Amino acid sequence: MSENKVLFLPDDVKVKIPVGQTILQAASKAGIVLRGACGGGGACGRCRVQLKKGRLSFAGTGKLPPEESEKGWILACQAVPKGEVTVFAPESSRLSEHRVLLEGRQAGVLAATAEGVAEPAPLFRRQVVKLVAPTLADNTDDYGRLVWALEHEYGIRNVRISRQVLAELPGTLRESDWHVAVELAVVDDCLEIQGVRPAAGQVSVFGLAVDIGTTTVAVELVDLDTGEVAGTAGAYNRQAAYGDDVIARIINAVEMPGGRVKLQEAVRETINGLVTELLETRSLDRTQVRAVVCAGNTTMVHLFLGLDPTYIRLEPYVPSVNMPPPVKAAELGLEVNPEAWVYCLPGVASYVGGDITGGVRVTGMAGEKALTLFLDIGTNGEMVLGNREWLMACACSAGPAFEGSGIACGMRAIPGAIEAIRVVDGGFEVLYNTIDNRKPTGICGSGFIDLLSSLFEAGVIDRSGRFVPGLETPRVRGGEEGREFVVAWAGETGHGADITVTQADLQNLLRAKAAVFAGVRTLLASLGLEIGAVERVFIAGGFGRFINARDAITIGMLPDVPLQRYKYVGNSALKAAGLGLLSQKVWEEIKEIARRITNVELSVGNKFMEEFVSALFLPHTDIKLFPSTQKGT
Amino acid sequence: MSENKVLFLPDDVKVKIPVGQTILQAASKAGIVLRGACGGGGACGRCRVQLKKGRLSFAGTGKLPPEESEKGWILACQAVPKGEVTVFAPESSRLSEHRVLLEGRQAGVLAATAEGVAEPAPLFRRQVVKLVAPTLADNTDDYGRLVWALEHEYGIRNVRISRQVLAELPGTLRESDWHVAVELAVVDDCLEIQGVRPAAGQVSVFGLAVDIGTTTVAVELVDLDTGEVAGTAGAYNRQAAYGDDVIARIINAVEMPGGRVKLQEAVRETINGLVTELLETRSLDRTQVRAVVCAGNTTMVHLFLGLDPTYIRLEPYVPSVNMPPPVKAAELGLEVNPEAWVYCLPGVASYVGGDITGGVRVTGMAGEKALTLFLDIGTNGEMVLGNREWLMACACSAGPAFEGSGIACGMRAIPGAIEAIRVVDGGFEVLYNTIDNRKPTGICGSGFIDLLSSLFEAGVIDRSGRFVPGLETPRVRGGEEGREFVVAWAGETGHGADITVTQADLQNLLRAKAAVFAGVRTLLASLGLEIGAVERVFIAGGFGRFINARDAITIGMLPDVPLQRYKYVGNSALKAAGLGLLSQKVWEEIKEIARRITNVELSVGNKFMEEFVSALFLPHTDIKLFPSTQKGT
Repeated sequence: MSENKVLFLPDDVKVKIPVGQTILQAASKAGIVLRGACGGGGACGRCRVQLKKGRLSFAGTGKLPPEESEKGWILACQAVPKGEVTVFAPESSRLSEHRVLLEGRQAGVLAATAEGVAEPAPLFRRQVVKLVAPTLADNTDDYGRLVWALEHEYGIRNVRISRQVLAELPGTLRESDWHVAVELAVVDDCLEIQGVRPAAGQVSVFGLAVDIGTTTVAVELVDLDTGEVAGTAGAYNRQAAYGDDVIARIINAVEMPGGRVKLQEAVRETINGLVTELLETRSLDRTQVRAVVCAGNTTMVHLFLGLDPTYIRLEPYVPSVNMPPPVKAAELGLEVNPEAWVYCLPGVASYVGGDITGGVRVTGMAGEKALTLFLDIGTNGEMVLGNREWLMACACSAGPAFEGSGIACGMRAIPGAIEAIRVVDGGFEVLYNTIDNRKPTGICGSGFIDLLSSLFEAGVIDRSGRFVPGLETPRVRGGEEGREFVVAWAGETGHGADITVTQADLQNLLRAKAAVFAGVRTLLASLGLEIGAVERVFIAGGFGRFINARDAITIGMLPDVPLQRYKYVGNSALKAAGLGLLSQKVWEEIKEIARRITNVELSVGNKFMEEFVSALFLPHTDIKLFPSTQKGT
Repeated sequence: MSENKVLFLPDDVKVKIPVGQTILQAASKAGIVLRGACGGGGACGRCRVQLKKGRLSFAGTGKLPPEESEKGWILACQAVPKGEVTVFAPESSRLSEHRVLLEGRQAGVLAATAEGVAEPAPLFRRQVVKLVAPTLADNTDDYGRLVWALEHEYGIRNVRISRQVLAELPGTLRESDWHVAVELAVVDDCLEIQGVRPAAGQVSVFGLAVDIGTTTVAVELVDLDTGEVAGTAGAYNRQAAYGDDVIARIINAVEMPGGRVKLQEAVRETINGLVTELLETRSLDRTQVRAVVCAGNTTMVHLFLGLDPTYIRLEPYVPSVNMPPPVKAAELGLEVNPEAWVYCLPGVASYVGGDITGGVRVTGMAGEKALTLFLDIGTNGEMVLGNREWLMACACSAGPAFEGSGIACGMRAIPGAIEAIRVVDGGFEVLYNTIDNRKPTGICGSGFIDLLSSLFEAGVIDRSGRFVPGLETPRVRGGEEGREFVVAWAGETGHGADITVTQADLQNLLRAKAAVFAGVRTLLASLGLEIGAVERVFIAGGFGRFINARDAITIGMLPDVPLQRYKYVGNSALKAAGLGLLSQKVWEEIKEIARRITNVELSVGNKFMEEFVSALFLPHTDIKLFPSTQKGT
């Protein structure tokens, strides 16, 4: 027997795997994304599944308590099936439905968006030309005739052609009576002629804008002739099986045998799954997809392209490449037209990637006079400060607190997460909203910001984030790990247990918010600027969508400028990919922005640590920095 | 049985061929090049072989007389073996040893040659850089660091890199302690980074200059580090099995099933055979060959690249491409480094190819003030007239007379060919030289020019090329096809038969010389110039090597300018390929020359036909055009 079978319940999906592969690998093949913060090492204990039938040839139990392993609970990453097995994979072990940010350009309201569409010249496009048939008096070569027509009619210069396309050119030109559509793809400073076809009877062509997030992947299918979004789809990044964050992914890519290939495969299969879904529902053929633009952080781009990510993680944090070359889809295994070029938005540094560069383009800040701050907060808080004169970026390691990780009741922004909180009545009552109005099962990032702000305003915690002694509310109590505050009682929750925040959690959140603010201050300080100079603040990314700017200012995370200066830009990485796909001009602008941005390493020659320590208070050691909060306290 | 076997005698070479293939195809596989002027159609009767053993499943006899077919003589192109057969292939059916023009650049004496070597920047080259290791204060991406160093140290801009090379970059940089050799290939306006290797312990790298002639192929192996020629080799173009001239080749490529592929295969195998020979004798590996530059006429380039040659042959004579893109060696099946780029010198028109453009560069005429005529005479007489201000080209169909074809005793310039002739004593005596001093077996092109001139000067023929009636010499006699002149008596010859020239042959030669001169006159006339304006005449190609300019003027083929204005430039196509290989600057200059040359079609709107008719006399209707010949007549 050279393969084993695994049946997953309650999904009722059966897959075959080679002998020796784990149930975690089988799950990935089945499209079931199990949690795996430790990258399959058996350490985090999150990929719990229950063996219902069959035997295992190996079953490390890792951290599982004996009473669980007695009931058949195993760690999927440690269990190797023998023959055919049936397992139950509970919701708690899965990365459940997530709000993948899909809003496309049509939802955008920014000038930049309109501009990109107003002057469309997609990275793949077709130009129709009617050539004058040759005569003895005008018998230049077929290719020369074509090139001349492209320049004469469309001002296109610097084209190139492959031998294969050239080999079919004379026949096509004559069969179509010299009336042809020329398929052009932008490559470096050239336009590559990918095909020449009779002008009549052309099929529609499409492009993909892809946001390769560490957690989720979003794909937008765009009609390259009309510029319209034909569909969107999103899913978890299957790399999740190899760790939650970029550091774990890099370690797995570098240290696991065949790691680089496996990580590349995982994200490729994620994208291919989405593309197949989008094409099937529209009855399109994969060969109609002629260009792909991807936005992702530097690690995601390295893993997607199969590049060496080793030195991203190690001081002095050097990526292989910031501005990756376009690569043919066939080489990457993307299930689109094999000749399609795949472009990745250029990044700036190991922790300031193409998603950020693209975001800057979407805001339009790089071309305007107003001093603007662009913020994308996730595990890393990435930010860019500047205007048309200069652009500076930094990444501060905020830690995973805002992503719901490392905190007892933290969770991602998925249904059931508490996303908004108000502590009232001096700490006696808590009002909250959950995503999709489900019963709460945890608190996501925006909820934590509200909570911190609200606990502070209600006097439950002090400026250093510590519980004020002697409060009479039953919500503050002693827990297993010290004092804690009960946000939701067991009776209200989806899992029947209290949802609490501990003193340790609060310190964790304080560090996260301090890192973000210290980053902002350091950027400003390096140019001798004060917070008041910031004329606009753009917040990007999924986390930013639910954030309450007022609360974020109250806790001293975001700069204290009038709220009307704040603007949410949505999934700016996906938007940027779409804009670049539809406009060679925008694509060039994004490259120019990447070249312009100066990266500031927060660990060298600047005051980041000092700023960080000062920011470990609510709102700050120097409360004059947050004048709007002083009225309230 | 799915294949047959053919043993060739006297070579004693046995090959296997698929069922259905002919003995001609088997011969090609065995490296035996049989004559085949008709391209395998059974019409020319030149590929005679004698069946010694075995049976045939098909044996068309074509033009063979019954007494021959009774003795087992068959036409190789018509004979399909059944099982195993043995055949004898006589010398008379073979394209025998030919003087392939191999003289390399080291033999050159032209300024252009020295210039090319003085400033070497080969199309593939290596640049060694020592990078500064990254620090936190300077942690740009690895690729960016490399690009910066190339620009800073060598002024190199506009580089590009593939994903595959990028994937290995970080490891190589660190293992080599940031001291690396960067392998660069010129592609269009870019330099492609083909590899990055530790600076220490580099192997030598080589390039190939290839002259793809219709008849012969010559290859020069060049050390790209030193610019030295490491070896040369030449052979018949195996396409000879598909016809003698470009027209027959095109017809076969277009009309024979799979023709384009077969013709491409034939020339590829010719080149691969030569390359393997050159590499083996020097114990070099094919991966050390990193660039290939080919020069050939437009048809040869099309067939080598597998492009569609159909419209080269049909009015209005349009090639697929004049300036072909570089193609990877792997795609063409060349047995060198698969990543090596193969460049073809750019041509001007269907009958003015890259060999001519390259020749113009070798003469240096495109950059000089003197009005210069460049002539390459073969089946087509191709010529370029001009200077640094302008360049005009034309091709006149001289017919194959000068190549020894279509003339009873004509032969190519191979051992035994009469290459120089003097008719003395009023036609009673003939003095001649043969190539390699063998007994004569025929007359080659240069011999015919001498003969025409000499017969005219001796009064044997009149101005219209007709035998003067009433001559008493026994050398003029009535033959099967009218009157003829005996050049060599049976007793002197290598085959024991008289070598003669008939009245029809003389008319044939007259038309050939008239076509060349009419071409020159038409080019001059289109600019209102007289022959005396020509300050230099460069003669190129194998035929040109043996030509006697004085005799060529006497018969009115070449312009009557002082002999010191004539210069022989050898195999200028091969020289140009070598120069382009070693110098990106020269390569760009050749492209510029191709763009500058204006092609004149001799069949439209000019006086070519009128000039041609006027030139059908010795030396010309208007003898004032040949003042130097008037003294003698």
